[in-house]
Amino acid sequence: MKNFLFSLGALLCVLCIGPASAAEKPEPNYVDAATLTLVNKPHATKQPFHRVEVADYPDLSKTVRLYYTYSTGVAVVFRTDSRTISARWTTTDRKPSTHMTGLSQKGMDLYIKRDGEWVFAGIARPGLGADHKATLVEHMDGTEKECLLYLPLFDEVKTLEIGVDAGARIEAAPNPFRHRIVVIGSSITHGTGLSRPGMAYPAQLERATGFEFVNLGASGQCKMEQFFAHVAAACEADAFLFDSFSNPSAQQIEERLEPFVATIRAAHPTTPLIFLQTEVRESRNFNDKIRKFEDDKRAASEAGMQRLLKQDKNIYFLNPGMPLGDDHDATVDGVHPSDLGHGRILEVIRPQIVKILKKHDIR
Amino acid sequence: MKNFLFSLGALLCVLCIGPASAAEKPEPNYVDAATLTLVNKPHATKQPFHRVEVADYPDLSKTVRLYYTYSTGVAVVFRTDSRTISARWTTTDRKPSTHMTGLSQKGMDLYIKRDGEWVFAGIARPGLGADHKATLVEHMDGTEKECLLYLPLFDEVKTLEIGVDAGARIEAAPNPFRHRIVVIGSSITHGTGLSRPGMAYPAQLERATGFEFVNLGASGQCKMEQFFAHVAAACEADAFLFDSFSNPSAQQIEERLEPFVATIRAAHPTTPLIFLQTEVRESRNFNDKIRKFEDDKRAASEAGMQRLLKQDKNIYFLNPGMPLGDDHDATVDGVHPSDLGHGRILEVIRPQIVKILKKHDIR
Repeated sequence: MKNFLFSLGALLCVLCIGPASAAEKPEPNYVDAATLTLVNKPHATKQPFHRVEVADYPDLSKTVRLYYTYSTGVAVVFRTDSRTISARWTTTDRKPSTHMTGLSQKGMDLYIKRDGEWVFAGIARPGLGADHKATLVEHMDGTEKECLLYLPLFDEVKTLEIGVDAGARIEAAPNPFRHRIVVIGSSITHGTGLSRPGMAYPAQLERATGFEFVNLGASGQCKMEQFFAHVAAACEADAFLFDSFSNPSAQQIEERLEPFVATIRAAHPTTPLIFLQTEVRESRNFNDKIRKFEDDKRAASEAGMQRLLKQDKNIYFLNPGMPLGDDHDATVDGVHPSDLGHGRILEVIRPQIVKILKKHDIR
Repeated sequence: MKNFLFSLGALLCVLCIGPASAAEKPEPNYVDAATLTLVNKPHATKQPFHRVEVADYPDLSKTVRLYYTYSTGVAVVFRTDSRTISARWTTTDRKPSTHMTGLSQKGMDLYIKRDGEWVFAGIARPGLGADHKATLVEHMDGTEKECLLYLPLFDEVKTLEIGVDAGARIEAAPNPFRHRIVVIGSSITHGTGLSRPGMAYPAQLERATGFEFVNLGASGQCKMEQFFAHVAAACEADAFLFDSFSNPSAQQIEERLEPFVATIRAAHPTTPLIFLQTEVRESRNFNDKIRKFEDDKRAASEAGMQRLLKQDKNIYFLNPGMPLGDDHDATVDGVHPSDLGHGRILEVIRPQIVKILKKHDIR
């Protein structure tokens, strides 16, 4: 097994032309990422890489409490003139899931600004346990660069250090994103099934629009329980995006949608609330039980939203909200959109979201 | 840990509405998949789920020998009227890689024919070890269906049984694919980075065209060594597709391309040989060393192919052969195209491949 993993590693090195083994290279100078700029958080937290201060919300369910300690959506922003960027970090020793890459669970991806655009620069490939070390990119030209590093989607980051060359500068950069849109949702928002952290649709929207998108997706959750509304109520946000119809049943939607919105409206009376209709699941293609459940759920969402749209001019409903195309190949497992699925969703909803936000002077 | 995995499993069940735990359901009747129809193999093998009889090729490198015992690209074709389709299977206990899903490494995906098209029906989610058991789809309508089950991309399948309801029929179906196109290539062909087995581009081409595509991709390999040419020479094939410029250096391309083709031409004098130019790697975006290596390699491929195209009218060169779009987001890790990347590649090359094959009466 070790031999196999070594061979696989060696082969990948050949395929990627490196990174060479750490032993051959000088050890980088590491800085604590908590001293740099952390973006995409609704508020500061005691543990810097948590996305929500879970102690402030005693009514959270146990699962959501756990997931909100994950670094999902959180990114580190910094400037450096280093020719090499490395990282060493620790997570829990949670075992890998079989429907996600380790890279999206415990790894990171780096983007560098070039000609005004965030361009993919490299990944931090995690190990299988709790301790990780990786070279993200090397052999760069040594000019100063603005860097955006997305943290793991499905694990708690306990420590994180960014490594640069001896003699290179690294410093916190200002938050490059303006406004703040908070996204509350299911596993689809959380990023289940994606290849790497920066491919989650809130992160893609952020890089494309320049607006800060906070990812509060929670896998298997977000059935419009009141505790999600309490979290939303406490967020400073210029707009909200909701993937809130992916997990509840038709009955839950009928019972919960209005009280969910009422709690948020008490704190944010006129903030735009954009609801995404859920996807048409591929798991229903031949399964008649899923088909019925999903059809009922989608009908309940539509009926509920029609009622709300009549009452509140700052509420929006994108339907379809998660269009996956018609070839049935855009999910990993019949439920979770792959990178292909998130790409197709964004192609349709991004211009609509931009238009709505512009109407509210978010531009 | 166990608690976490259990919770995650339970949540996924909620999200997917099942499958319920095996304990609640009657045990299926299992049949050995080796008694059904196995497609996408260049020839029969002693171990039915190997793709190549490696003993026949003593000159294979150790790594390629290992990879050719994997079930990459191989699929089982059968008919059943069962309302539920399950599987139990064994692989090696190889640890998961961190840049692929377990699903694509050790899992399977099922397609069912509907109105003349292969439509995604479900996945067989593997465990983390060597023994696996899964329900692929349930609550179906009980009419007879033609099924296509792709086997794991990155492991050896030692045993595989398909499970159906008590009293349901299951039987071998004729190979639904006509002609045979053999694809020889790198990790990109092998499917590194994909979410599930059926998303590899040869499998997608197969479902879209109705032609049988045999996947002989080998991760990190295919630098046009003579042993790959010997394998190709021994295949019964109506056409070949080569992803042979992804891994070799410029020098290797200059030295090996002509002898590689010469060995194949000795066995297949006029069979169409379609070469794909390799992708423009995202790992070169900021890494000047990779950029130089890749530019040189691509130039050598173009020069070499120009020479060959003048000598042989049945050789084709698709350039770009792996177009990934211009947003830098179509690879998992800067090297391996994700589902999004394979989708973009196919959009461009599929019509060109279909046109070339048609010219050779492969239609």
